[in-house]
Amino acid sequence: MILTVTLNAALDVTYEVDRLLPGASHRVERVHERAGGKGINVARVLAALGRPAAVTGLAGGATGSLLRQELHAAGLRDDLVAVAGDSRRTVTVVSRADGEATVFNQPGPRSQPSEWAAFRAHYARLVEEAEVVVLAGSLPPGLPQDAYAQLVTAAARAGATTVVDASGAALLAALAAGPDVVKPNAAELAEATGRPGIEDGVDTLRLLGARAVVLSRGPDGLHAVTPEGRWRSAPPRRLAGNPTGAGDACVAALAAGLADGAGWPELLREATALSAAAVLRPVAGEVDLAAHPRFRATVLVEELKRDEPKETDRAHPDR
Amino acid sequence: MILTVTLNAALDVTYEVDRLLPGASHRVERVHERAGGKGINVARVLAALGRPAAVTGLAGGATGSLLRQELHAAGLRDDLVAVAGDSRRTVTVVSRADGEATVFNQPGPRSQPSEWAAFRAHYARLVEEAEVVVLAGSLPPGLPQDAYAQLVTAAARAGATTVVDASGAALLAALAAGPDVVKPNAAELAEATGRPGIEDGVDTLRLLGARAVVLSRGPDGLHAVTPEGRWRSAPPRRLAGNPTGAGDACVAALAAGLADGAGWPELLREATALSAAAVLRPVAGEVDLAAHPRFRATVLVEELKRDEPKETDRAHPDR
Repeated sequence: MILTVTLNAALDVTYEVDRLLPGASHRVERVHERAGGKGINVARVLAALGRPAAVTGLAGGATGSLLRQELHAAGLRDDLVAVAGDSRRTVTVVSRADGEATVFNQPGPRSQPSEWAAFRAHYARLVEEAEVVVLAGSLPPGLPQDAYAQLVTAAARAGATTVVDASGAALLAALAAGPDVVKPNAAELAEATGRPGIEDGVDTLRLLGARAVVLSRGPDGLHAVTPEGRWRSAPPRRLAGNPTGAGDACVAALAAGLADGAGWPELLREATALSAAAVLRPVAGEVDLAAHPRFRATVLVEELKRDEPKETDRAHPDR
Repeated sequence: MILTVTLNAALDVTYEVDRLLPGASHRVERVHERAGGKGINVARVLAALGRPAAVTGLAGGATGSLLRQELHAAGLRDDLVAVAGDSRRTVTVVSRADGEATVFNQPGPRSQPSEWAAFRAHYARLVEEAEVVVLAGSLPPGLPQDAYAQLVTAAARAGATTVVDASGAALLAALAAGPDVVKPNAAELAEATGRPGIEDGVDTLRLLGARAVVLSRGPDGLHAVTPEGRWRSAPPRRLAGNPTGAGDACVAALAAGLADGAGWPELLREATALSAAAVLRPVAGEVDLAAHPRFRATVLVEELKRDEPKETDRAHPDR
């Protein structure tokens, strides 16, 4: 079983407007509401692939009830733990004129120490069933900064493989527990490590404890540094679409492949293809299942030799 | 008693962000939630003036419960009628950098004919107690377009004075019932009548049935055309601040003055002063009670003679 953890589960609300104009009053033409948060979106993608995952994390209040109802309607396994606070909403305003999405993320309700203790006890039972545990998204206020480190340690003790998709202080604190894979994007890597270069940033995350780092580079694909080697993978061409769900699809593919014992080139091929298939869909948590096998066949995966000169070090006789 | 009607009651949510950037992802620093809708904001201003008003309208679902809880906490009299649909939210995004407010208005839940019938029966009892009835804001989907006309007629039959603050089709349909006062702003006047000029627009609303029209002109004050005469009133100087609550404060002052039997110059002086006092406060439904008497003493009210040349008709020898 794959277990996805969303400590700051949300009700994702989408507002369609004609065009977003700062300072103006907008009539919302359509409203969509869905359970969200990165871990829940990963579970949605896994369900679409026919790999049902369990959803755990924290949810509460009237908003928590709404998001759990939607989770049930979507056929996902709800192992969320109830908290006293009202779950957060995220509001995404989509302009019909140009498809532009503007996102407002509430911080989430403050969790109490007793709620965190109750969650850890629940989680300890769930990881016994899990081959792979995905820890994804922000931490709500009130949780210890090393919350992901605690969960990585408990999962490893139960023999599960861990994938962490977090940013900032939550990511850095997770590293100390030695997660199997961390998946930052380029902005998250630079923010967490303070290093401008990709190679330096990735090396820093590994020195701090990550076994493998899979860096998602948007339309440029993935860059992976692992104990087994270094790889670069890219989709055959740049795709126009909605990039917001690509990271969640990437994590879903890594989790599914790790559960199956796939090797790195295969993991990266699948993760790159599934990310590309997510870009074709308008909302995070969905993938274009028809395009997916086509992308898988055309993704380029290239092994990078450790001593190979970096692109930026090459001579450029033309310049 | 003053009765305020908010058929499309809302939970008004305010998100504070650093700066609104279309296409970006924003961390919401603070979230405020309050019962809203124009009629509820009018009742809040009346309560601040020590003139408690009753709040009726339609509310339902989890969001309706939240807004009613907040109404009770604010000490307002809750005479809302429960409906099956979930009440709407409005989201106002305030940029801390410049105070700019960007508003997203959900349309509201669809009302059923049986709910409208239940509301009218409840309203018929409430108007028996009312001297003034304020009908303000948008209509939720499913209500008849002439909803305000039906309510104006029932109020008039019970001997109450009616003030309508609506726009578009809801405003136009209300006119047929002969409301005592309608209060559009310049944009609403132009939209409803299709007339570019203020005088023409106001005359059109009166020809269609409004007894008196009070046009709110933002920092330029009020322009009133009534059976008793025509007046213009203005604050002593332009005020910097939040204009979103000025219209609600204006309506509150008109309702209070009409309940007291005040004459037009006094009504307009008070409405202009209270609108200005609302501009000093960051949210609709609040007024600066310390500034209010100061503004009242300095507002200019000028009677306009019917045959006085319009400003635009005057000779401009300098040009």
